Amino acid sequence: MNYRMHLYVLGKVMLIEGILMLIPTVCGLFYGETDKLIVYMACSAVCMLIGLVIGFFKPKDTRIYIKDGCVVTAASWLLLSLCGCIPFLVTGEIPRFTDALFETVSGFTTTGSSILTDIEAMSHASLIWRSLTHWIGGMGVLVFLLAVVPMSGGSNMNLMIAESPGPSVGKLAPKVRSTAKTLYLIYLGLTLLEILTLVIAGMPVFDSLCSAFGTAGTGGFGIKNDSFTSYAPHIQWIVAVFMIVFGVNFNFYYLLVAKQPGKAFKMEEVRAYLLVILASVAIIFFNTFNISGDIGTTLRNSVFQVSTIITTTGFANTDFDTWPTLSKLILVSLMFIGACAGSTGGGIKVSRFLIRIKTVAREIDKYIHPRNVKKIQMDGKPLDTDVIRSVTVFFMVYLLIFSASVAVVSIEGYDLVTSFTSVAATINNIGPGLAMVGPTQNYAFLSDLSKWTLIIDMLAGRLELFPLVIFLYPGTYSSRLHAKTRIR
Amino acid sequence: MNYRMHLYVLGKVMLIEGILMLIPTVCGLFYGETDKLIVYMACSAVCMLIGLVIGFFKPKDTRIYIKDGCVVTAASWLLLSLCGCIPFLVTGEIPRFTDALFETVSGFTTTGSSILTDIEAMSHASLIWRSLTHWIGGMGVLVFLLAVVPMSGGSNMNLMIAESPGPSVGKLAPKVRSTAKTLYLIYLGLTLLEILTLVIAGMPVFDSLCSAFGTAGTGGFGIKNDSFTSYAPHIQWIVAVFMIVFGVNFNFYYLLVAKQPGKAFKMEEVRAYLLVILASVAIIFFNTFNISGDIGTTLRNSVFQVSTIITTTGFANTDFDTWPTLSKLILVSLMFIGACAGSTGGGIKVSRFLIRIKTVAREIDKYIHPRNVKKIQMDGKPLDTDVIRSVTVFFMVYLLIFSASVAVVSIEGYDLVTSFTSVAATINNIGPGLAMVGPTQNYAFLSDLSKWTLIIDMLAGRLELFPLVIFLYPGTYSSRLHAKTRIR
Repeated sequence: MNYRMHLYVLGKVMLIEGILMLIPTVCGLFYGETDKLIVYMACSAVCMLIGLVIGFFKPKDTRIYIKDGCVVTAASWLLLSLCGCIPFLVTGEIPRFTDALFETVSGFTTTGSSILTDIEAMSHASLIWRSLTHWIGGMGVLVFLLAVVPMSGGSNMNLMIAESPGPSVGKLAPKVRSTAKTLYLIYLGLTLLEILTLVIAGMPVFDSLCSAFGTAGTGGFGIKNDSFTSYAPHIQWIVAVFMIVFGVNFNFYYLLVAKQPGKAFKMEEVRAYLLVILASVAIIFFNTFNISGDIGTTLRNSVFQVSTIITTTGFANTDFDTWPTLSKLILVSLMFIGACAGSTGGGIKVSRFLIRIKTVAREIDKYIHPRNVKKIQMDGKPLDTDVIRSVTVFFMVYLLIFSASVAVVSIEGYDLVTSFTSVAATINNIGPGLAMVGPTQNYAFLSDLSKWTLIIDMLAGRLELFPLVIFLYPGTYSSRLHAKTRIR
Repeated sequence: MNYRMHLYVLGKVMLIEGILMLIPTVCGLFYGETDKLIVYMACSAVCMLIGLVIGFFKPKDTRIYIKDGCVVTAASWLLLSLCGCIPFLVTGEIPRFTDALFETVSGFTTTGSSILTDIEAMSHASLIWRSLTHWIGGMGVLVFLLAVVPMSGGSNMNLMIAESPGPSVGKLAPKVRSTAKTLYLIYLGLTLLEILTLVIAGMPVFDSLCSAFGTAGTGGFGIKNDSFTSYAPHIQWIVAVFMIVFGVNFNFYYLLVAKQPGKAFKMEEVRAYLLVILASVAIIFFNTFNISGDIGTTLRNSVFQVSTIITTTGFANTDFDTWPTLSKLILVSLMFIGACAGSTGGGIKVSRFLIRIKTVAREIDKYIHPRNVKKIQMDGKPLDTDVIRSVTVFFMVYLLIFSASVAVVSIEGYDLVTSFTSVAATINNIGPGLAMVGPTQNYAFLSDLSKWTLIIDMLAGRLELFPLVIFLYPGTYSSRLHAKTRIR
């Protein structure tokens, strides 16, 4: 393991976090929240200082094997969350450590589950910091690092693979650095577009910023106690559309920018994603129509809820916990499906389901036509068997972590739906679940044991299991062999 | 496809069913239920007659490829259920067709979910027929056929593979016929042992017969409205132990009979199965101790419920729907794990989980030690990659059928726990679920749409998905190729 390189990367991560904390500082200055502004400024300075010190010397050997990539990614996210929760503690706005860490991890992992019982009591500085964690967590801090810090060697691809969502990361550009830059440029562009649209639509600038950060990262922290329920219908529509936009595989936008719209619109994952949205909206529309009896309201609520759940954002504009069972069930299913790979969304990802369905279809076909075995293809290209196998393993590890977590949470003795959906909503990085963790509720009432379990689930979900598993697996540190296999 | 051979097999199946119907006939005679006895005698005669006619000519070509095996197995089970429900309809004890079919499929598939609201109002003849369907369904009617009807050619192995539970059927003896015979002899021996033990313990003979049939097939139809709640504690203990016995892989008993106890006790699946039982009992014991506060009662209820659920029998001796969430969750998890392969139990099977866990451990190990890849082993022998792959596909097909079924049932609008556990309890061939389909409830209130969905689930679960999928897949009949691949 290249521990010097680990330290170097962690230093840069702290530096970035320190710089980002200047934004809440400025915000506190603007709103005259002097006590908060001092806290954020101090935290920012300390982060930058420590970051500069431990990231000062660049090691000669900058190679990062996949094992290093996993370990340093998991470590970065833990560090990011630990430092990120300090302002909440110091300002006294979230006085307990477990709660502050829960809220911060929920932010960075773009989950959006909150332990706050009165969001509107928070200062502007802390609200924007909370939403900003979504934005940086959405595309990933290491991808940002790769985009801005020159790092030699092709092995830094392993950092990107470990952090980026989805079964396989296609390099958009020949170089990792340009890929990372392109991703962040598209991300920034779309975020600015949303901010602009919301401001034009009449939303206050502060609300627009926070909402756009939450949408772009598919996070879901609202700044109102009722999330989006009291915003005007046309604003809800804008946010609904942008949620869908940020759940699309970013390769799609890259292909559009690269003037290959034909290839973009032929992407199977994007098609499947839109199809699932369309079908879910249709079913929920008819299933919930008699609640309001109004076509416009029903359509808006259906579209908003489907996009907020499948993209794993988690904003709420209505209490879907009161919806009929079929609609609730569809939403719970969407929690697991999740957004596209290569988007900022969480969940298992549409492409993993596509690959599994294709595998099954191939196997069944094999019983019928044993002499005519076809290769599994995706977007016209044959899929690597490594990818297929790692998707299989992903599902199993997911199931194990999921079951164990539900068992731990259920010790508290709340009902099954609460235990089940609290884990589903966190491991898939969504936010609200059903029953006691429904859209109008929060996670404050849970015990510390449950909160820590859900903290691990949120991190495991955002990092797509393997980096965290390898980080926690003791064998990782005892072995002297360098793993050259790539995670896909 | 060898349609002549299909007809021949179906004829024999009807003949066997006709012969079996003589048992309720005798029972009706004994209890003086003349009107019922006439119905069963008539049905028996008609079944035998039709069976003799269509199974009279043995085709020259008796080869059964895997595709034929799947189709004829699915067809046999449908035929068995359709004929088996006629007495219920004609005696008027279950007047609606959907209900009668539901009850019969629930019997043959050893599920034990009932639509009866007053079980004790049934005649003795119908009660024993109901329990007898469990017994014949447990080991399988085609395995019985193979044991008693001489069939040439090694390809009748495909019949056994299609009907027997578990990812791979080891031939116990060199010939299929002796394997089938051995299986049925062990099965019969253990059943007689249970009947004897129960009678000695003071249970009425009729009750002993029905209970033993239900235990041996891991079915779960009780003959009392409160299932096992009102039987004496020592009788509950006997049944609990026998349930565990019938959930063990029958290879274990074969090895014992063949005087290879060392090999038997080293079977990984049996060890894992007993370990899961032990761990579940321990957790549930401590979690439910304060309900009665009595060690004996708590231990008995814990053991009884764990064994009734993991073996997918479904007898009830207490209302576990009132237990704490953690205990309920463990029971729901056990529903999915199920019994051993090669037993009469349902569920996904312990060995499938073992194979999946080993696969995952190997894959994670591969990231850490890429140059030192180990083969996956089971009981000291390397596993065939075909087996590993088909287990993977099994999980995915299972997930698809499961999700679709829950969606259909949820249209009725009952709560999520009812919708979810009604499917879990039927596709895993257990019987009772939670909430509205809990141990003290029944399935009578569901709509016909839901009942038909659950009927398909019960059949899919008992036949382990593939035979039913291949039976229903249109491509099976259009293709001219013979599938020689084996299902494992």
